[in-house]
Amino acid sequence: MEGNGGFRALNDKSLVDYIKSTPLLVSILGNQVEDLDIKEVGDGNLNFVYIVVGSAGSMVVKQALPYIRCIGESWPMTKERAYFEAVTLKEHGRFCPAHVPEVYHFDRTMSLIAMRYLKPPHIILRKGLIAGIEYPLLAEHISDYMAKTLFHTSLLYHSTTDHRRAVAEFCGNVELCRLTEQVVFSDPYKISQYNRWTSPELDGDAEAVRQDDTLKLEVAKLKAMFCERAQALVHGDLHTGSIMVTLDSTQVIDPEFAFYGPMGFDIGAFLGNLILAFFSQDGHADQANRESYKKWILGTIADTWNLFQKKFTSLWNEHKDGDGEAYLAAIYNSPSLLLLAQTNYMKDLFHDSLGFGAAKMIRRIVGVAHVEDFESIVDAKKRASCERRALEFAKKLLKERHAYHTIDQVISIIHEFNQ
Amino acid sequence: MEGNGGFRALNDKSLVDYIKSTPLLVSILGNQVEDLDIKEVGDGNLNFVYIVVGSAGSMVVKQALPYIRCIGESWPMTKERAYFEAVTLKEHGRFCPAHVPEVYHFDRTMSLIAMRYLKPPHIILRKGLIAGIEYPLLAEHISDYMAKTLFHTSLLYHSTTDHRRAVAEFCGNVELCRLTEQVVFSDPYKISQYNRWTSPELDGDAEAVRQDDTLKLEVAKLKAMFCERAQALVHGDLHTGSIMVTLDSTQVIDPEFAFYGPMGFDIGAFLGNLILAFFSQDGHADQANRESYKKWILGTIADTWNLFQKKFTSLWNEHKDGDGEAYLAAIYNSPSLLLLAQTNYMKDLFHDSLGFGAAKMIRRIVGVAHVEDFESIVDAKKRASCERRALEFAKKLLKERHAYHTIDQVISIIHEFNQ
Ligand SMILES: Nc1ncnc2c1ncn2[C@@H]1O[C@H](COP(=O)(O)OP(=O)(O)O)[C@@H](O)[C@H]1O
Ligand SMILES: Nc1ncnc2c1ncn2[C@@H]1O[C@H](COP(=O)(O)OP(=O)(O)O)[C@@H](O)[C@H]1O
Ligand SMILES: [Mg+2]
Ligand SMILES: [Mg+2]
Ligand SMILES: [Mg+2]
Ligand SMILES: [Mg+2]
Ligand SMILES: [Mg+2]
Repeated sequence: MEGNGGFRALNDKSLVDYIKSTPLLVSILGNQVEDLDIKEVGDGNLNFVYIVVGSAGSMVVKQALPYIRCIGESWPMTKERAYFEAVTLKEHGRFCPAHVPEVYHFDRTMSLIAMRYLKPPHIILRKGLIAGIEYPLLAEHISDYMAKTLFHTSLLYHSTTDHRRAVAEFCGNVELCRLTEQVVFSDPYKISQYNRWTSPELDGDAEAVRQDDTLKLEVAKLKAMFCERAQALVHGDLHTGSIMVTLDSTQVIDPEFAFYGPMGFDIGAFLGNLILAFFSQDGHADQANRESYKKWILGTIADTWNLFQKKFTSLWNEHKDGDGEAYLAAIYNSPSLLLLAQTNYMKDLFHDSLGFGAAKMIRRIVGVAHVEDFESIVDAKKRASCERRALEFAKKLLKERHAYHTIDQVISIIHEFNQ
Repeated sequence: MEGNGGFRALNDKSLVDYIKSTPLLVSILGNQVEDLDIKEVGDGNLNFVYIVVGSAGSMVVKQALPYIRCIGESWPMTKERAYFEAVTLKEHGRFCPAHVPEVYHFDRTMSLIAMRYLKPPHIILRKGLIAGIEYPLLAEHISDYMAKTLFHTSLLYHSTTDHRRAVAEFCGNVELCRLTEQVVFSDPYKISQYNRWTSPELDGDAEAVRQDDTLKLEVAKLKAMFCERAQALVHGDLHTGSIMVTLDSTQVIDPEFAFYGPMGFDIGAFLGNLILAFFSQDGHADQANRESYKKWILGTIADTWNLFQKKFTSLWNEHKDGDGEAYLAAIYNSPSLLLLAQTNYMKDLFHDSLGFGAAKMIRRIVGVAHVEDFESIVDAKKRASCERRALEFAKKLLKERHAYHTIDQVISIIHEFNQ
């Protein structure tokens, strides 16, 4: 099958030929490419992912096709997203190699990325959360990832020259941004053929979202921030399905939605998905009592924000005399003034994160794409009850986020909605 | 003199040859190019501007050189600014032809724009304000210009696809943005070789600006918004020296600083410069009593904002079912909800405008580039007294802008500082 401009959609067979004709990939496989074991594992929504295992090496090959996999050719989507994913893996990997898989090879024509295979026991974090597994290092690792990637791609580290150049490049990933605009900030708040929810249980709840003027006004502000504000190179899809974990490793994959946007979009995605995991636990509680696991999730939420804040601020202090142009050392020239600037910055970022986190929660309950945390609760009544509590919490958080000053206050409210 | 890549700096003589070899320009001059009268009038800071008058037609030719004219080759500045100026004149002219001179010709290699000659009695607005001339249509016209140009280049009118494409292009004007970042948001708040002020009178005042932590924290927020927020295609230098007027015409020139930035940056530049004009009037009061003129300025400030708000909102209503993606009609689907959205939007824009306006005032008093309104007050004591009142007002406005809800409240405070 000949694609346009040299592009061909690969399959298990043609991928072998592709690998054999690409010396770098052959060498990564230790020059042993005769008995390759190839498995397509794309459980994601958009792309094809192949695990390639040979006798002397392994890798993962991800290919983007010019449409959305889980919907089909009827929803076209530029395969150039692979380019932005590759650039972001490399850029984020440069600043945080411990938590981003290494990119071995990128082929723009083929929209194909070869990267490190995150071997078992790595699993997708969301699955671990559903199984009730505690990851003691998760907050430490993910706060590290977020602090390093967001700080180093912001104006606290970049000159405005570097920043605008990078912003311009990532404007090219507009199709993926538009998908987010639609499914996160628009569809849940209107009638849309794509929306779905646990029905009939949540019919009234979905309708209430569409009728909630205060909520819609707040969502408009977040959407504007998403579309207008180039604060840092964000991952753009940092939910618990974009993170692979073991008990001592945390790896962030799948940044195909990356662009220069508000930092709170990433932080909120992660925290919001942990909160979804929290509210889903009662639906999984027949296997085991989940109370202590719920505590661990809440602790991880608190630790993530608190550690992020600490690490981000440390990076700022470390680089305060560097090239970053947002706060020139000659102006913010006393420790007390710098501290005030940091406090202001963190306060705004906290509120942004809560807002985006809440919006991401809402869309997972009444929008097109749901989360396995809830979907795997077979009993619809039980599922609806979990979802409703998450939704009510998220609505309150979105509307009242500016009233919260610490993550502990947010956690108290989660407790309230957990009754 | 051969420049790089075909660029040559023109002079009165070589400009004639350039015109003669450019058929379009010849035709604009009615094919009469033998007795051209050429006068270089670049009173601006950056570029060379030639008025070309023939027996059957006229034009203005503006050329950017690869440095800042008023400083010299020691401060290089990309001549590509002419490209962004030309694109913006055309784009703004498309939406507001009544208040933007027509571009006849643009030569990117030569960084040269030929445009309509704004004939006498057109003068630079700032000079009219110094002379105490009332322009009864100014608020009407400039509110029209700002509403039309800002609305039509925002996400209220653009799809996000068009918006990101345009944002990416204007990221290229980063050198000019950097100049603003330096002279507006940084230098006044630190020791800089470029800063100057009426000395010794304002030595303490300049020092106080550098020591004012609250002010510096607020300026950081504005700088971040300037660098990160691509809200609309702003003129970028909309002071009263970038506007030419007669009693019945208002024309906006010189958008070489244009980029996708916060709308409040333009609105604030205009309002802030009118406020500077207001505070300078007492320095010109020996020629005539300026009390009624000061009233007119304040009335123009109020009218400009109020008319802008009305016109911008009308455009929004008119296009609410159009391609703009910020507020989808299916979501913001009741008149009362839309009105609330507009009220929120205008409130934020008002505060942004006051903040940027104040920052622009401050930098004109203690930064590198001053305004003729004050500079033309010969008596240093008198000048310093005018400047000090303007500076104190601006500092208060920058710090407390969120406390104001109407332009009339701002005007009351101006009155207070006028005592
Ligand atoms: N580097 C990797 N190592 C191991 N498994 C991976 C790797 N990258 C992706 N996967 C697996 O493939 C799945 C889909 O990958 P992902 O990048 O999320 O694709 P999509 O963009 O389609 O969501 C992941 O959920 C994970 O199970
Ligand atoms: N289209 C025009 N018609 C008449 N005079 C103009 C025109 N454009 C510029 N000028 C004159 O030239 C001066 C400098 O032009 P401007 O575009 O402001 O240049 P600069 O970028 O150097 O500030 C203006 O102040 C005005 O007096
Ligand atoms: Mg994925
Ligand atoms: Mg993906
Ligand atoms: Mg000028
Ligand atoms: Mg100028
Ligand atoms: Mg200029």
